Amino acid sequence: METSDNATAAEETTPEPERTGIAAQDWATASAVPQYRAAVVDLLGALAYGELAAFERLADDAKLAPSLEDKAELAKMASAEFHHFERLRDRLAQIDAEPTAAMEPFAKALDDFHHQTAPSDWLEGLVKAYVGDSIASDFYREVANHLDSDTRSLVLSVLDDTGHGNFAVEKVRAAIEADPRVGGRLALWARRLMGEALSQAQRVVAERDALSTMLVGGVDGVAAGFDLAAVGEMFTRITKAHTKRMAALGLAA
Amino acid sequence: METSDNATAAEETTPEPERTGIAAQDWATASAVPQYRAAVVDLLGALAYGELAAFERLADDAKLAPSLEDKAELAKMASAEFHHFERLRDRLAQIDAEPTAAMEPFAKALDDFHHQTAPSDWLEGLVKAYVGDSIASDFYREVANHLDSDTRSLVLSVLDDTGHGNFAVEKVRAAIEADPRVGGRLALWARRLMGEALSQAQRVVAERDALSTMLVGGVDGVAAGFDLAAVGEMFTRITKAHTKRMAALGLAA
Repeated sequence: METSDNATAAEETTPEPERTGIAAQDWATASAVPQYRAAVVDLLGALAYGELAAFERLADDAKLAPSLEDKAELAKMASAEFHHFERLRDRLAQIDAEPTAAMEPFAKALDDFHHQTAPSDWLEGLVKAYVGDSIASDFYREVANHLDSDTRSLVLSVLDDTGHGNFAVEKVRAAIEADPRVGGRLALWARRLMGEALSQAQRVVAERDALSTMLVGGVDGVAAGFDLAAVGEMFTRITKAHTKRMAALGLAA
Repeated sequence: METSDNATAAEETTPEPERTGIAAQDWATASAVPQYRAAVVDLLGALAYGELAAFERLADDAKLAPSLEDKAELAKMASAEFHHFERLRDRLAQIDAEPTAAMEPFAKALDDFHHQTAPSDWLEGLVKAYVGDSIASDFYREVANHLDSDTRSLVLSVLDDTGHGNFAVEKVRAAIEADPRVGGRLALWARRLMGEALSQAQRVVAERDALSTMLVGGVDGVAAGFDLAAVGEMFTRITKAHTKRMAALGLAA
């Protein structure tokens, strides 16, 4: 398994961007700006609920596993997502945010996404885990560049690949080799996943002022947020990485 | 929360029984008897699959949780069960047993049990986790007394309470206090669980020669297995502990 199969948007960016504004500060300094603080609580809340939802989804997918080894592999990933959740929840508590209150605004969008995209079989589950997690991970990595150093290192550490990338690529490619028609069905499925993910993401951004202000235009002119052109570039990078990943799966994007 | 609420059959036994026969040996010595070796592979296989099934069940129950905190609590327990599974699987591999082959003979009985006793709500799920795990744990603790020292310490360590005991007791008692009729329904439910558990256990024992020979009568006169009178005493202790636990929940056994 070549690791180059797992394209990430990060490969398209310069390895170590120069840190300015809030990105050059630690949490103690950066959190003095109330709007930045609120944006980080939102971000960690969204990420924490996402990990808990990922735990549930992977545990559910484990039931569809064709073998005991596959079941154990998915249970392992689920467990890894849970430990990420724990770290994010503990961090929220540490910065005096109520973890449940921080997560709740994002519960409906994520639950709706998972409800709209419940996989009907093992392969759809794998594609969803791979495509969905990769896009979410690319997005959070981009955002991490604009965060204070403490929040950034936490976010990057919970995005560490829990290993489903390679596992999914291997299984999906083998299934398409065995029956090429599977490829067409899964390509359609991946496109539906992208559509649903974008529509839910849009809803969240529209509802969460602090978060979207941080993402577009920065906070009070202090935070190094994205300007609109930068948002466009970010989506281009994420889309490129998605196309590469689809190719790695043997699917047309 | 008083820990005395969590009765275990172990409380009924002497704290440190005198070790004789295989129970006084380590794995390297004890495993020279092929029938004992086969029985341990069976036991670890059954336990490993049980942990994996418990992971799935708790992850499923997490969906029924009335709050995000409760959901996180169940996800934590599920994750703990998964780590127990990993240790058992690794041990099977270490003693040159194929983990999947060791687990498979027990998959159907455990799947059937969980299928027959799918909880219809959050409280039924909690009672099942508490009653089911406690009985299984009592049983394995009794068996552990008859195992070689290495296998015994592994078995005892994966039976360490993952914390759902206190959590379930607290939640179920509060629900019964709020609405006493709940108690009657849950008492019936617990009796059904006991019945299903016994019928599946019986099936497994009937099918697995090495395991049941170890449990009743010992292996080749070498292992310190139970004689039939001892089996009777064991069931008495387990039943007593179950009755105590039901009382702790506020339910008639």
